[in-house]
Amino acid sequence: MSCKTILAKEISASYREELKKTIKSREIKPKLVGFLANEDPAAIKYAKFTSKTCEETGIIFELRKCNREELEDQIAKANEDDGIHGIIVYYPVFKNHRDQYLQNTVRSSKDVEGLHNIQFPIKNYIIPCTPLAIVKVLKYIKVYNPVLSHGNRLYGRVITIINRSEIVGRPLAALLANDGGKVYSVDINNIQVFYRGTGLKLKKHEVQDTNLKLEEILPISDVLITGVPTPSYKVPTVLLRDGVVAINFSAFKNFEDNIKEKASIYIPTIGKVTIAMLERNLLRLYDYQLKVN
Amino acid sequence: MSCKTILAKEISASYREELKKTIKSREIKPKLVGFLANEDPAAIKYAKFTSKTCEETGIIFELRKCNREELEDQIAKANEDDGIHGIIVYYPVFKNHRDQYLQNTVRSSKDVEGLHNIQFPIKNYIIPCTPLAIVKVLKYIKVYNPVLSHGNRLYGRVITIINRSEIVGRPLAALLANDGGKVYSVDINNIQVFYRGTGLKLKKHEVQDTNLKLEEILPISDVLITGVPTPSYKVPTVLLRDGVVAINFSAFKNFEDNIKEKASIYIPTIGKVTIAMLERNLLRLYDYQLKVN
Repeated sequence: MSCKTILAKEISASYREELKKTIKSREIKPKLVGFLANEDPAAIKYAKFTSKTCEETGIIFELRKCNREELEDQIAKANEDDGIHGIIVYYPVFKNHRDQYLQNTVRSSKDVEGLHNIQFPIKNYIIPCTPLAIVKVLKYIKVYNPVLSHGNRLYGRVITIINRSEIVGRPLAALLANDGGKVYSVDINNIQVFYRGTGLKLKKHEVQDTNLKLEEILPISDVLITGVPTPSYKVPTVLLRDGVVAINFSAFKNFEDNIKEKASIYIPTIGKVTIAMLERNLLRLYDYQLKVN
Repeated sequence: MSCKTILAKEISASYREELKKTIKSREIKPKLVGFLANEDPAAIKYAKFTSKTCEETGIIFELRKCNREELEDQIAKANEDDGIHGIIVYYPVFKNHRDQYLQNTVRSSKDVEGLHNIQFPIKNYIIPCTPLAIVKVLKYIKVYNPVLSHGNRLYGRVITIINRSEIVGRPLAALLANDGGKVYSVDINNIQVFYRGTGLKLKKHEVQDTNLKLEEILPISDVLITGVPTPSYKVPTVLLRDGVVAINFSAFKNFEDNIKEKASIYIPTIGKVTIAMLERNLLRLYDYQLKVN
């Protein structure tokens, strides 16, 4: 088999070692609180996994379960508690606009996931964990070409992202397009192109609608990133470019079993890289709070 | 400008340093003889350049000019001379089948260019300089993805080569296809595909004719390598994929001036890398002769 399957564990290893070392040598005890206000199996799994990983890294993690109607008050309390350095809420909670409202109730200096006011993030401050994790994955597997200038390292790559959620798909498309990629962003309604134009003549990407269909985009995509939160959705391998880089960030497998017959690199999950970025963000917030308090 | 122009000098530097060090520390005096039997400006330039480079590296280089009718006898003499470790002939000489015949009169143990019996090269022994140089260029600029398994590192790359000469274009297409690339080989008569098939299911590449036209292949090529030996030939930039990697190995500029508006990486010449590979081959032959004599 020519396909190389790369596990998130391998990709996250160097970040996690770095984090452990820093926490140990500085003798600090950063604390993360997670709020679970649903029975979603993926959320529960993610919470358990955060707990296990934080323990290994030397981060204090406390899971607080509550009724979703109490959640806003609980977050407010945690915002005020100086002993808590970061807050994570396991979504979905209400599965509607109230979830976006909730994101903005987490104080930005404790918003470890970088979801606070995602449209206007503080520059270079906290980048949302999952998009950041995917950027790290793409760097690890050399889709970012280190020979090109910083900021242009995806120039020439065509990348399709099936997911345009406000917390992952959209910010990810923006990040990758700003780094020079031509990004097709797919959701259930339409397909958009995020791009800096031929020759990367624009400094920042523009977003345009396209009439191209998914079956026209997949055969020309060098990289395909999927995040469809349903077990039944599978990308048809037959439509993919031979040698595609296939990355799945959904809790469900969005690729068919035969993906390895056509991908050059397959990354079935990225969870461990996401948690490493969550931990990294927590440390940044810890230092920020030290400075301002 | 987003395009990164990379000069052969930069790419060849590490190889040349290595060669210099080896020659100095081993206190050896490898000798290369070059035969010039034409008035071709590109050949004369290449000969002068070989001379200058060899001097810098610590290789003895002797240029022998002769009438083309005497060339075969001159080569025969050099074959017998134990003081000569490598022979290079500056082509074209007759510009017909006699040039191919001449290639095979150079004794294989002195064939520094690797042109001897190119259809059946001794495995891992001497690879033709220019194709080898282009492979090194592609590795330097990370078109070879080091994350993939050795032998599959071009998997997913579509590469077009405009040149199917027996000494460069054809062996290059074979090398790149064997490393996993999908290679379109273009000459004046037709276009062929060198490929190991979907999923790289074949161990060695196969060659097939294609009905695709150049204007259909260029927009889907990640890498374009040109070697058309005429000053008038220019690839139309308008046909190229945005972010293409553009490499020219012709003595003439085969790209239009606006290539930098569309290429992510542009390599205008590769001569210095070719000479470094020539020198490397000479050292290999030197050692081979030490062993067998």
